[in-house]
Formats: sequence, C-alpha cells, structure tokens
Amino acid sequence: MPPRRVIGIDAGGTKLLGGVVDDGLAVHHRVHRFWRGADRRETLDIVAEAVEEVRAAAPDIEAVGFGIPALVDWERGISVWSNHLPIGDVPFRDLMSERLGLPVYVDNDTNTAAMVEHRHGAAQGADHVVMVALGTGIGSGLVLDGRLYRGARGFAAELGHLVVDHDGEDCPGACPGVGCLETLASGKAIGRAAEHAAEAEPRSTFGRLRAQGREIGGGLVTELAHDGDAQARGILAGVGRRLGAGLTGIVNALNPEVVVIGGGAVAAGELLIEPARAVVRERALPPCAELVRIVPARFGEESGMLGAAALALDGGRA
Amino acid sequence: MPPRRVIGIDAGGTKLLGGVVDDGLAVHHRVHRFWRGADRRETLDIVAEAVEEVRAAAPDIEAVGFGIPALVDWERGISVWSNHLPIGDVPFRDLMSERLGLPVYVDNDTNTAAMVEHRHGAAQGADHVVMVALGTGIGSGLVLDGRLYRGARGFAAELGHLVVDHDGEDCPGACPGVGCLETLASGKAIGRAAEHAAEAEPRSTFGRLRAQGREIGGGLVTELAHDGDAQARGILAGVGRRLGAGLTGIVNALNPEVVVIGGGAVAAGELLIEPARAVVRERALPPCAELVRIVPARFGEESGMLGAAALALDGGRA
Repeated sequence: MPPRRVIGIDAGGTKLLGGVVDDGLAVHHRVHRFWRGADRRETLDIVAEAVEEVRAAAPDIEAVGFGIPALVDWERGISVWSNHLPIGDVPFRDLMSERLGLPVYVDNDTNTAAMVEHRHGAAQGADHVVMVALGTGIGSGLVLDGRLYRGARGFAAELGHLVVDHDGEDCPGACPGVGCLETLASGKAIGRAAEHAAEAEPRSTFGRLRAQGREIGGGLVTELAHDGDAQARGILAGVGRRLGAGLTGIVNALNPEVVVIGGGAVAAGELLIEPARAVVRERALPPCAELVRIVPARFGEESGMLGAAALALDGGRA
Repeated sequence: MPPRRVIGIDAGGTKLLGGVVDDGLAVHHRVHRFWRGADRRETLDIVAEAVEEVRAAAPDIEAVGFGIPALVDWERGISVWSNHLPIGDVPFRDLMSERLGLPVYVDNDTNTAAMVEHRHGAAQGADHVVMVALGTGIGSGLVLDGRLYRGARGFAAELGHLVVDHDGEDCPGACPGVGCLETLASGKAIGRAAEHAAEAEPRSTFGRLRAQGREIGGGLVTELAHDGDAQARGILAGVGRRLGAGLTGIVNALNPEVVVIGGGAVAAGELLIEPARAVVRERALPPCAELVRIVPARFGEESGMLGAAALALDGGRA
C-alpha cells in the first residue's frame, strides 16, 4: 500500500511553512510564504494558495491540517483571537474546507507541535510535557497526564503570556498584557535586544551593522553567535536567562518531565537553551528542577508543520 | 446510621488548624496551634498532640487526613520538601500512622483545599479550577479536566513560585527563586508592604503603630482596612494587583473557568480580590479573561482542614 499523504501547514506569526507529509512523517514538498503585513483576506488567500501549490505536486493528498497562531475553538474549528495575524473570529476550518474542497483540521500551532514532539520527538515516553516555540512570539502546548491539555474552551497554554515582569513593558501585538514572557524571550525579543545593544554601543558589532543600515533580527544574531561573536552570544544568553525565568515558574506550577524548546529561534541551539536551563536549575524548587529535562525540539522549526500534518493524518483526533 | 467522622488537619506555614469533621463536612471540635519556630521534632510533636486533643473529644473517628505545606510524594506519603516548615524528607504518613495508631492520609495542603472547593464549594460544577491560598506563603491546587493535577511526581501547582518579577527579590524561605509571586502577594507580603509603608511615612497609620512598637502583620492590615483606613486599603489593593499579575499569567496558561482565592488572607475579601480581578480583566488575553470567574473560597480559611478531612473520608482517593 502506498503511504497516506496529507498537507501540513504551520502558519506562524511572520511566515508560513508547509509541506506534503506522509504517514511516516517524511516531508516531500515544502512551501514557504511571508505575510508582509497582509490583511485578513490577503492572509487567507496566501494560506489557500500555499496549499494549492503543494497540492499540485501531490494530487493524492487526503486532507489538510493547519496549525495557526491563535486561540482556537477547536471543536468548531474557529480562530477566535490572534496576537499576531488578522485572523480573529474566522471560521477557519469551514472556510478553508469549502475553498479547498478537502477535509480540513485546525488547531493552535504549538498544540500540534507539542503532540508530535510527544508522540514521535523529543518528549517521547513522557506524560508531562511543556512545549515552548520561540518564533515571532512564543507559542506553547501542554501534554498533561499523557493528553493534550486544552483548558475550558481550548485556549490553554499561552505561556508566552505568563507575566514575568509585573511592572514591565506593554506586550506588543493585540495582547493587553504587561511584562509577558513573549516580550522578553521570543525570536523578536532577540532582535529587539540586539537593537538596544546597537544603540547603547555604536562601535560594537551590532552598532556598526546598524550604522550600515542592516536590519537586525533574531536570525542575524543567531548567525553571528554561531560564528563566535561575543556580543551576539551575550544577547542570546540574556534572552535565554529571561526564558529561564518563565520556565522556572512553569516548572514549579506543572512539575513536567520535559520542556521542549522549538520554533525558529531553536536555530540558536545551546547558546539559547543552556542559559535557560541554568536558570531553572538554580531557581526552580529543587525537587522540580532535579526532575525536568530541557531539550531542543527533535523536529526543530518543523514541529508545527509536522504536528499539523499529524492532526490531519489522525482525522483531528489530537 | 451515625455520620462517619474523621480528623482533618491543615498544617499551614504559621499555624495549624484542625477539627473533627463528619461526612457532611460539619466541623465539631476545632484545634489551633502555632509553630513559633519549632524544629522538625517539635513540629511533628505539635501535630501529633493536636490530633490527640481533638481525638479525646471524638474517640469514634476513623482516620486522619493531613494537608501539609510541602511537596508531597503522594503515593508514598512522604513530605519531600517544604518552603515553610522543617519537614523536608519526612515519611509523614507512616510516621503519623504508627504514632497515632490510625489510618493516615497526607497530601499538599492546597491540593486538598482545591478538591473540596471543586466538589462542594466555590468551584462546584467547573472542570478547570485554579485554587490559590494566601497564607504565610501561597499554596495552590489545580483541577484540570475535572481531576486534581499532580504533575510528574506529585509536586505540581506551586503557583506561589511563578516568577512575576524576573529581576526581583530573593524568595524568602528555602526556595532558591527570585521574584516569586509569593514574595509579592502572600499574607506575609501584606505585612511586609505595611512595614515598608510605615518606614516611608512615619506619620501615617502604620508609621504611628510602628513607633508604638506594634507588630504589623497581614491580620492587622486587614482589620484596619475593614475599618476604613485608607492606607491599609491601599496596601491590600497593591498586593491584590500583584496577585492579579500572577493570576493573569496562569489564566493565559491554563484557561480555567474559576480561580478560587482562599487561605487566611481571604479575610480581606473584596478589598484584596477585586484589585486582582481588575488586573486579570485588563491584562489577560480577552477570550480567557471573559471566561474566568475569580471568587473567594466558600470555606474561607477552613478549605485546607475540610479538604484534609475529605481526603481521609475518601480513603485517600483524591
């Protein structure tokens, strides 16, 4: 029998990653799109066109799974609210299903990532898992007592909006919060920290790049850090320690066995994860700190896409 | 048939509350004890003597349930670690059972409180409940998907050690954390805030009381606030708002239907709870904020004792 194939789409805060995925989780055709400030209709058009592009290469696909950066009313397939994309109050499942003529499944992007890391990835065998995906913002998923935890209405696991600085800065985006973890430790926060460093030290690496008009984002910081630049490494370490403060709280609150770090920022690897781990080791309640492992996602920044595909392969039973 | 009766003991950070409790949760004989700096042996002696005192009044009791302010290895009845009492690494269940000659059940104090508020109290009918008890520190219990959530080893729900000020003060007690919610919003934090206010404003209510050598604790602040003192009300409002910052994070993380506020500090009532509620309403993600109710514990500061009794009545099946 040929493998079953579906399309998995991870619609992130800045970009879309998608692909044809088979039931062995092998990816056959990848697609990338950037939103670049698209409004609601344009965003949904970009999503549908990305699906059609990969579908052309694989007409045998059965269904499409979407992970979206939103609070999702999972039973009804509605995108209720999003901090990053203009897709609040969108009947996403029905709309895409009608437009594509295919079965469609939709869930929060990091819920799907957490499930795939739990079943097949870095958290295999663990029943208490926290997944944190650092991209434009911070997405999260929780596997508690072996099952995906959704909360009362499906909105659970917004760990990017844990308050780690109760007197701090306003959360960017649509979130009305103050001092949210996402303002201090997302991929975007890495870029912001580098911008601040550039301003403070005009003769430093980032100060010079800024003077040259280069755009300073998390990707550039990570690249320079891997090349050994001390300033870039310091920025990642600072963001990692702030991530660690948020993780300390959640490790105390949930007593997980594994914390999986994914999302685009996981490209920084141990330069980001080790400082976070060190803070948890120092500051979490000792019995909780001793137990927990903090590890990179097995599927790197593709966890979301593979998770969305797994959701579709399972017919939505996540 | 006469009602079944057990003893419920809530061993808090500062004091012990206990009583004979029947299967209708009516309390027949109460007992109070203060630790006053007791060491490990003295603490365990005080506990056993308190049980014997109420048992003398009710020789028909079946069992004893204990709620203790500790991380509890629930299956083995071991007190693994405590921030407030010298009872770390104590085989509490077996030790008390042998000493008292009765069946003994033990769990974290606020786990038992959460269960009793979930089954019989302020969170009845809700499947997603966060219980926060403000006493010397902050104890917590989580009911998720209708069941008490314990985490990987039984240590879950230490919401007092959510980090809400990542660059803040060291957590007092044995916790190695920094900026823990408990440093900013426990009963003890109310007393500390009043001490600071007294220092800053010597001619204010608390400044004068301090000059008279009065000990300023949470109880006195609450009493004066109920009498209408503006400074005392301001202190409770400030602590309430900091509590609200912690709750905002946990409401975003867990999407609960109800947050129950208990513990001794609940004597402050709406003077403490309304400012916390206002912060959650303003700052939590709107779909989570709209759903959640933040309410006082039905059983006030007796939730822990009743929960411990309920644990014993259930034969430990919480």
